[in-house]
Amino acid sequence: MQVLVSKENRQIKMARKLQEKKHRDQKGLFLIEGQRAVQELFIRPDLIETLFVSDNLMEVYEGDVQRLHIKQAYQVKADLMKYLCATETPQGIAAIARKPVWSPDKLLQPDSTVFFLDRIADPGNLGTIIRTAWALGIGVLLLSSNSTDPFSPKAVRASMGGIVKIPVYQAVSTSMIRELKEKGYQVLAADSKGNKLLYDINFNSGKSLIIFGSEAHGMSGDYSYMVDAWVKIPLQQEADSLNIAVAHGIFSSEIRRQRLYG
Amino acid sequence: MQVLVSKENRQIKMARKLQEKKHRDQKGLFLIEGQRAVQELFIRPDLIETLFVSDNLMEVYEGDVQRLHIKQAYQVKADLMKYLCATETPQGIAAIARKPVWSPDKLLQPDSTVFFLDRIADPGNLGTIIRTAWALGIGVLLLSSNSTDPFSPKAVRASMGGIVKIPVYQAVSTSMIRELKEKGYQVLAADSKGNKLLYDINFNSGKSLIIFGSEAHGMSGDYSYMVDAWVKIPLQQEADSLNIAVAHGIFSSEIRRQRLYG
Repeated sequence: MQVLVSKENRQIKMARKLQEKKHRDQKGLFLIEGQRAVQELFIRPDLIETLFVSDNLMEVYEGDVQRLHIKQAYQVKADLMKYLCATETPQGIAAIARKPVWSPDKLLQPDSTVFFLDRIADPGNLGTIIRTAWALGIGVLLLSSNSTDPFSPKAVRASMGGIVKIPVYQAVSTSMIRELKEKGYQVLAADSKGNKLLYDINFNSGKSLIIFGSEAHGMSGDYSYMVDAWVKIPLQQEADSLNIAVAHGIFSSEIRRQRLYG
Repeated sequence: MQVLVSKENRQIKMARKLQEKKHRDQKGLFLIEGQRAVQELFIRPDLIETLFVSDNLMEVYEGDVQRLHIKQAYQVKADLMKYLCATETPQGIAAIARKPVWSPDKLLQPDSTVFFLDRIADPGNLGTIIRTAWALGIGVLLLSSNSTDPFSPKAVRASMGGIVKIPVYQAVSTSMIRELKEKGYQVLAADSKGNKLLYDINFNSGKSLIIFGSEAHGMSGDYSYMVDAWVKIPLQQEADSLNIAVAHGIFSSEIRRQRLYG
C-alpha cells in the first residue's frame, strides 16, 4: 500500500474538503470514519473511492483491501489521519465514498413504510434515525429541503454505517408527499398533542407515510391538510415531547411489533 | 434585580466552576441552562440557588422571580451569560440549582420499573434517557459507578429539565442490584443477541429491573449471573445494535403499551 505523508496530497485534501457540504454536493462524495462504519462500507465496495488506513491497522485491513480490489488504498500516519478526519479521536480508518443512489421504486412497494422528516436540524439525531431505520429494517427516509445533510461527518458517524444501507431521499417536495398520498399511503403526523394513540394505529393494513416535524419548530403547515391522523405516544401530562430520534425509534418498534404479531 | 457585570463576581465564578464534575460533587450544585429547562426548574423552586437572566429576557422572567421568591436573581449582559454557560449559544437564562435528593422508597413500590445503566459513557445519551423516562413516566434510573455524570451541562441539556423531575441514583453497586432481585424484581438484560423478544415479556406481572450495558463495552460480567432473561428488540440480521437512548425508549414504550392495554 502506498504511504501518504503530506497534507498537500490530492487525496488528503479531498478528504478534508468533504467536511464541507458544498464539496460533498459538488463531487457526490462523502467521508466515512471509524472501523465499524467502514466495515459496513465493505459490503458495498462499489461505493469506495479511496481508503485511508493508519499504520497500526495495516495488518488488520490488508486482506480486505486485496479481497475487495480497492485500488486507491493508502497508509497514513496517525497525525495525518487526525488531520483528514472530522472526529477528534479517529479510529485509524477512513474512506472517501460515493453517495449511494437509490431508485424511487422503493417507495412503490406494497405495505411499505416511509418516514418524512420535515427540516430535521441535528445531525446526531438524523444519523441515529438512519441507524434505527436500518437496524429495524423499517422504512425509507425522506428529508425535506432545509434538513441537515445526512452525509455530514456527524450524521454519518451516528448512522454507524447505516447511511450506505438504506435509502435516504433528500430535498423531497410537498408535491412528492401529495403524490404518495394519491398512491394510497395513509399520511400520519407524529404529534405529542395528537388525538390517536400510536398503539391504536393499524400499520398492517397498507402503506404509511409518517411525518416528523423539526425539533424546534414542529411540522410545517404545508403538510397539515394532507394528514389522515395525528398520532401521539402517550406522555405524562406535564411533559411535552421526546427526542425526535427516540420518538422515531418508538414508532418503528411499534410497526415491527405489529408486523410480527399481525 | 441586581445587575452583574464582572467575571470576577462570586456567583459568576461559581457557575463557571460547575462545568467541572469536581465542583459539582463538592458543592452538590449544578448548572441548568436554557428557557425550557429552567421552566421545569420553576416547578421545583426549592432547588433554585441562583438565577441569571440576560437583559433581553428581563421582562419575561421578572414575574416568575417575584412569584417564586427567588432571592438570588441577577441580570447579566449577553457576553457574561455566554461566559458562564457551557453552551455556545446560550438562550438567555441559566440557574445554579441544588441536586435533587430522592428517597430510596421509590424503589420499593409494587410494579415499579427500574432501569440500571452500566457505565453509560455519552452525556447526550444519558440526558436523552432521562428525558424519555420523565416524559413516559416510566422508571427510576440507576447508574453504576464509572457512568457519565447526569449533572454535566450536556446531560442536563439533553434531559430538557427532566433531571429535576425523576429519581436518578448514582454509583449503584452490585450488591444493590442483588438486593432488588431478592426483593422480587425480575432482572432483564437488554441484549441484541438475547433469546427473548421484548414484545413477549410480561411487564404487568411485577417489578422489573432492566440492565443496559455501556455503548462500547456492553454489560459487565458482574451482573450476568443475576439475569432472569436476555431480551432483544428484533433487528435485521446484519445489523448489530441500536443507539442506547433509542433502545431505552423502545423498552419504555413497550412497558407503557402493556400498562395501557393490560
